[in-house]
Amino acid sequence: MNLILLDQEEAAQTAEDGGVILLKADDRRTRHILTVLKPEAGATVRIGVLGGGIGRATVEILDGGSVKLSLALGQPQIDRLPPPAQTPHLELLLAMPRPKVMMRMWSALAQLGVRRVILTNACRVEKPYFSSQATDPTKYMMELREGLEQAACTRLPDVRIEMRLKPFVEDVLDELCPSNVQRLLCHPGDCGVRIAQAVAAARLESQASRERGVLLAVGPEGGWVDFELEMFRKHRFEQVTLGPRILTTEVALVSLVSLTMDALGTSSTS
Amino acid sequence: MNLILLDQEEAAQTAEDGGVILLKADDRRTRHILTVLKPEAGATVRIGVLGGGIGRATVEILDGGSVKLSLALGQPQIDRLPPPAQTPHLELLLAMPRPKVMMRMWSALAQLGVRRVILTNACRVEKPYFSSQATDPTKYMMELREGLEQAACTRLPDVRIEMRLKPFVEDVLDELCPSNVQRLLCHPGDCGVRIAQAVAAARLESQASRERGVLLAVGPEGGWVDFELEMFRKHRFEQVTLGPRILTTEVALVSLVSLTMDALGTSSTS
Repeated sequence: MNLILLDQEEAAQTAEDGGVILLKADDRRTRHILTVLKPEAGATVRIGVLGGGIGRATVEILDGGSVKLSLALGQPQIDRLPPPAQTPHLELLLAMPRPKVMMRMWSALAQLGVRRVILTNACRVEKPYFSSQATDPTKYMMELREGLEQAACTRLPDVRIEMRLKPFVEDVLDELCPSNVQRLLCHPGDCGVRIAQAVAAARLESQASRERGVLLAVGPEGGWVDFELEMFRKHRFEQVTLGPRILTTEVALVSLVSLTMDALGTSSTS
Repeated sequence: MNLILLDQEEAAQTAEDGGVILLKADDRRTRHILTVLKPEAGATVRIGVLGGGIGRATVEILDGGSVKLSLALGQPQIDRLPPPAQTPHLELLLAMPRPKVMMRMWSALAQLGVRRVILTNACRVEKPYFSSQATDPTKYMMELREGLEQAACTRLPDVRIEMRLKPFVEDVLDELCPSNVQRLLCHPGDCGVRIAQAVAAARLESQASRERGVLLAVGPEGGWVDFELEMFRKHRFEQVTLGPRILTTEVALVSLVSLTMDALGTSSTS
């Protein structure tokens, strides 16, 4: 936890209370402050508001084990704290992995700054995966928050669950995903171009001033089936490759997102 | 398991037996073939020899649950099978992570094709980490093999454990690590250049015909301490960054290795 994350109700309360936040003794953030950070008298910690800015607060441990955080002096008020650095615009259309794997991925995706995660059914996805903890908002929101607290960020990814891939791609995607978002299709095997190459080529074609982004479609273990590949190609998806090695979903996802963020980051600063 | 991996004794036996391999009923590869691959009559599976080549074998399930693999016709003998595509030369000098994390990383590092993993002590590493399962060769070799079986590769990373970082960097590293291997220092925070940039700059300076590679020094949670950073800089390490976000060891490692492999892969083909 590299940031104490407050939700918006807490931030509103903090504003009313003149910049003071009280965390109860049984709050998991309190436990983290007391057992891991162990602040000395007068120490400050990094705080952030979900969807908002980042600042510092002075920690005071109260009798009874609760914690008082006071916005550090010389900072803007809590609703005007400066936002953390933004990552490039990256969305993920992900064939639902095994729930155990997906449960571990939520934090990683939040850490990496993915803007939107669309979990989809697909031919090689087993339907019961969608009635697991990994698609239960109360469970995955906790994981997403932990990812933000780790990366010291405040922006939650949007999450959508789509049980029917074909109608989604044919009828919803164009509206959901702006036309300046490049669509990349990830599939095991060495067919396709490198991600950096695909992103650089699209940048050359587009107007440099427009904000750009990428939507990555990542298939299940074993990959998309031919029918799905064909549908993606028809809808402006360009195939990319990580090379001939066959990676687990976890390793492949972190690789794909990192390479795409890096490619987009380069293009936005040049 | 995208490849049935044989060790060298098994390959030698196979050569003597005219290209036939017998896997016992209680072998974990047999269990995988019977419960996951479920081959039909006459089906073939991908096989590989540890440190050697890759080919295909016809599967036959014998009475009693053992499995007979016969090298597919028209292939070279088992000791002459063609090797899988090589990844670029990437070595890792890694401050020992928490054992639970390291245990999960072995497979990922093998999947990604890292050539050498040097696990080192450092100021912020807790010594008991080194007496855990994660540094027990019988345990981590199993994880590495699973990584190769996943990625369909045959080359195991070399593993070294160094309990004293300073003497290692000062006295051993120059000999171990050839001079055409670029040294990159990974440390949280946005100080440093992008990996792709560092690799491209070194390529411009070097002779294009020489085989090149990278050694990545990756610190513990919380990063290297100042003394260590200073020592690395004195020994030709150049600092790189993944940006301002603070990633968990698992996410950071996969990101760093993927970005480096990608940067080296580009340079070797151009």
